[in-house]
Amino acid sequence: MYEMLAEFIGTMILILFGAGVVGGNVLKHTKSEGMGWLAISFGWGFAVALGVYVSGTISEGHINPAVTLGFAAIGDFPWAQVPAYIIGQVAGAFTGAVIVYFHYLPHWKETQDQGAKLGTFATDPAIKHYPSNFLSEVIGTAALLFGLLGIGANTFTDGLDPIATGVLIVAIGLSLGGTTGYAINPARDFGPRLAHFLLPIHGKGPSNWEYAWVPILGPIVGGVLGAVLYALLLG
Amino acid sequence: MYEMLAEFIGTMILILFGAGVVGGNVLKHTKSEGMGWLAISFGWGFAVALGVYVSGTISEGHINPAVTLGFAAIGDFPWAQVPAYIIGQVAGAFTGAVIVYFHYLPHWKETQDQGAKLGTFATDPAIKHYPSNFLSEVIGTAALLFGLLGIGANTFTDGLDPIATGVLIVAIGLSLGGTTGYAINPARDFGPRLAHFLLPIHGKGPSNWEYAWVPILGPIVGGVLGAVLYALLLG
Amino acid sequence: MYEMLAEFIGTMILILFGAGVVGGNVLKHTKSEGMGWLAISFGWGFAVALGVYVSGTISEGHINPAVTLGFAAIGDFPWAQVPAYIIGQVAGAFTGAVIVYFHYLPHWKETQDQGAKLGTFATDPAIKHYPSNFLSEVIGTAALLFGLLGIGANTFTDGLDPIATGVLIVAIGLSLGGTTGYAINPARDFGPRLAHFLLPIHGKGPSNWEYAWVPILGPIVGGVLGAVLYALLLG
Amino acid sequence: MYEMLAEFIGTMILILFGAGVVGGNVLKHTKSEGMGWLAISFGWGFAVALGVYVSGTISEGHINPAVTLGFAAIGDFPWAQVPAYIIGQVAGAFTGAVIVYFHYLPHWKETQDQGAKLGTFATDPAIKHYPSNFLSEVIGTAALLFGLLGIGANTFTDGLDPIATGVLIVAIGLSLGGTTGYAINPARDFGPRLAHFLLPIHGKGPSNWEYAWVPILGPIVGGVLGAVLYALLLG
Repeated sequence: MYEMLAEFIGTMILILFGAGVVGGNVLKHTKSEGMGWLAISFGWGFAVALGVYVSGTISEGHINPAVTLGFAAIGDFPWAQVPAYIIGQVAGAFTGAVIVYFHYLPHWKETQDQGAKLGTFATDPAIKHYPSNFLSEVIGTAALLFGLLGIGANTFTDGLDPIATGVLIVAIGLSLGGTTGYAINPARDFGPRLAHFLLPIHGKGPSNWEYAWVPILGPIVGGVLGAVLYALLLG
Repeated sequence: MYEMLAEFIGTMILILFGAGVVGGNVLKHTKSEGMGWLAISFGWGFAVALGVYVSGTISEGHINPAVTLGFAAIGDFPWAQVPAYIIGQVAGAFTGAVIVYFHYLPHWKETQDQGAKLGTFATDPAIKHYPSNFLSEVIGTAALLFGLLGIGANTFTDGLDPIATGVLIVAIGLSLGGTTGYAINPARDFGPRLAHFLLPIHGKGPSNWEYAWVPILGPIVGGVLGAVLYALLLG
Repeated sequence: MYEMLAEFIGTMILILFGAGVVGGNVLKHTKSEGMGWLAISFGWGFAVALGVYVSGTISEGHINPAVTLGFAAIGDFPWAQVPAYIIGQVAGAFTGAVIVYFHYLPHWKETQDQGAKLGTFATDPAIKHYPSNFLSEVIGTAALLFGLLGIGANTFTDGLDPIATGVLIVAIGLSLGGTTGYAINPARDFGPRLAHFLLPIHGKGPSNWEYAWVPILGPIVGGVLGAVLYALLLG
Repeated sequence: MYEMLAEFIGTMILILFGAGVVGGNVLKHTKSEGMGWLAISFGWGFAVALGVYVSGTISEGHINPAVTLGFAAIGDFPWAQVPAYIIGQVAGAFTGAVIVYFHYLPHWKETQDQGAKLGTFATDPAIKHYPSNFLSEVIGTAALLFGLLGIGANTFTDGLDPIATGVLIVAIGLSLGGTTGYAINPARDFGPRLAHFLLPIHGKGPSNWEYAWVPILGPIVGGVLGAVLYALLLG
């Protein structure tokens, strides 16, 4: 239960900062409007680092069902705890998105672009082509697991781990994020999309549920694939 | 007394670098004019890291009354020392702002925009709506305390702490700063606002005291709330 | 063999992230299009850090024939292992480039500029002048070896090494990369150039093989020169 | 003698990367042209970090006469070694600037702006006002010494020191650099200015020797002032 709470809080922090940086970039009349992709990439990277800092000593800071499933697939995490972790992660992501809604309260009305409002919460592809979009999410999440396992293979002081993980996320954003907005985390996309669907956001458009399976299934396949490949090749 | 001096110097360094990066961005004819929000966020993050480096081994480097009060609220800091810390912090912030005034001496006259001059010292909201602005400061400062306590819960070499704290501040700037300019520190706003009010800045406008309570009360409420929630949930 | 596999995978990760960040910058309709040189520099720096994280504990993470040859030239690496390392590095760079091709699948058709497509894979000079371009690659790679040996001369925890190496690569990109696009690694240029030549990239132009010797020979000369100078002066 | 050589090489690396990043920003037809102030600040910060990595274990990596004099003023460094250190630093800065000249060889002719060519080597003020410019250099260098001494007061693993020092330099660039281009180091300005004066740079203008005393005397005064104040207040 305590680990589930830590995953809940860690993923809440992840989305508070992650959805926060997107909102700060796309919503009208913020001071940070248009800060650009490098800022977004650092924002998400540090969001993950902070989520791991808050939860890492308790639950190892997965804050991502694709990580939990990838670790379970190679025997690094007990399958029996997987459901509790995923429930905590999705609920935390939803809660973080609700806080972001309140944080930007006066900005929803000022923003005409419905895509910007949805984009604060959920991902969408740069070019809509489901098989390619799926493949991008598989590649990005496989790279995430490869990186996480590689970082873990080094002899660290514990305290550094979250920053190295943050650097990994910044790198995925810069190098692989431009195609689909790098969900690479089913909870990161589904929880905030649900929040977008349920919250009374001023002038919002549809929540684009047709696309929602891509950032759920893609990361799951990629996470398991990346972890298994790493274990086979370098484990 | 020695701790109070360290808080004075640490907060002076914080504002020298923090107000400095804003001045470098908004004042006319600086070489760094218009460097953008990512630069501002890194500037404030490194400002906090340096303030903590200078004061950390003596006073633990709070350099922020909201941090001092938050730690006191959960029993991590003695209430009896709170007043001395806050006095040191506010005086240090004022002094740092005075140095920034001298640093940019030829640029005040070149800058017509009174908002830019005030913005070098004190925060103002992107959209004026006091309840939402207050809420943003509460959320930002609660996230600050959550992050600080999470980082502290890890097993660190002491030397790394300030950089991890700096990353936390960069993240708050990128992800939550676009609404109110993220005071998240009553001394950071009040001290420099007072300096703006008292200094003979060429062609300055009003110091916007009507807004001054928001970046004082918001961070105090948020700091205590964040620390208490962390202690209840993960302590 | 295991070290060769690690070099293969490390260099694959390097090019997945490195070619990935260039593609995200220059290919049309990515979300990260036009993110700029600072983002490119961070992207390549973190690409190297991740390549080293994945391979470092097994093969010391050279992921660059110029590094392997430089270390061999000063007796820090056995000559007998050099061929296997270089084969692993070139094959890994080729494979990483193939993954990048699939990652950006819908974007090749959208991009008219043949130079952008080639630039995702291989380097070309800002001003075509082979002796100067060669010299730039020599200088950049000599600085790389100097930096690597300097970083290694410090007493590190192992876990930090990759991030310090990443910072070195970011610095080379920012400070010395603007002339030739800083191959500073024969495998990094040749492997992806071969992939560009062989892959069915929509509307691609020539692979510019006339220039290919510069980013092979320049880094080899620079790597050996930098390592030897370091060993003579500071070793 | 060995320490002097280390200071020579460390300052050479500093200027290779530092003048390199300015050249990459302002010279025509580089791939990194116009990358902006944030990139410049990171470039100089990492330049210092690398200079310290290369020289730190031998000479403590001052690579700056203002640091050497500041440390000597408070008894942290023997006065007898000061002249050798400064000679090594100035000669290293000159040599680094010569390498930068060769690195950008085809770009000097392409660049019409004589200020850009000089700016690659030496600093000049945003607004010419010698007393204010002098004061800016004093403030920036005093902050440098305060920061260095604060960072050193922490319990570090040695390996991290250079990165923390790099962060300090990035911060000075972002927050205090926009007024005079933050020489904060007499060797950094004088050595490259001399190189600009002596080298056959295509279409170069005057070397602006009238200003040269400001980035020499300002940093010396600031360095001693900062070190003495730190020792008095926090030592």
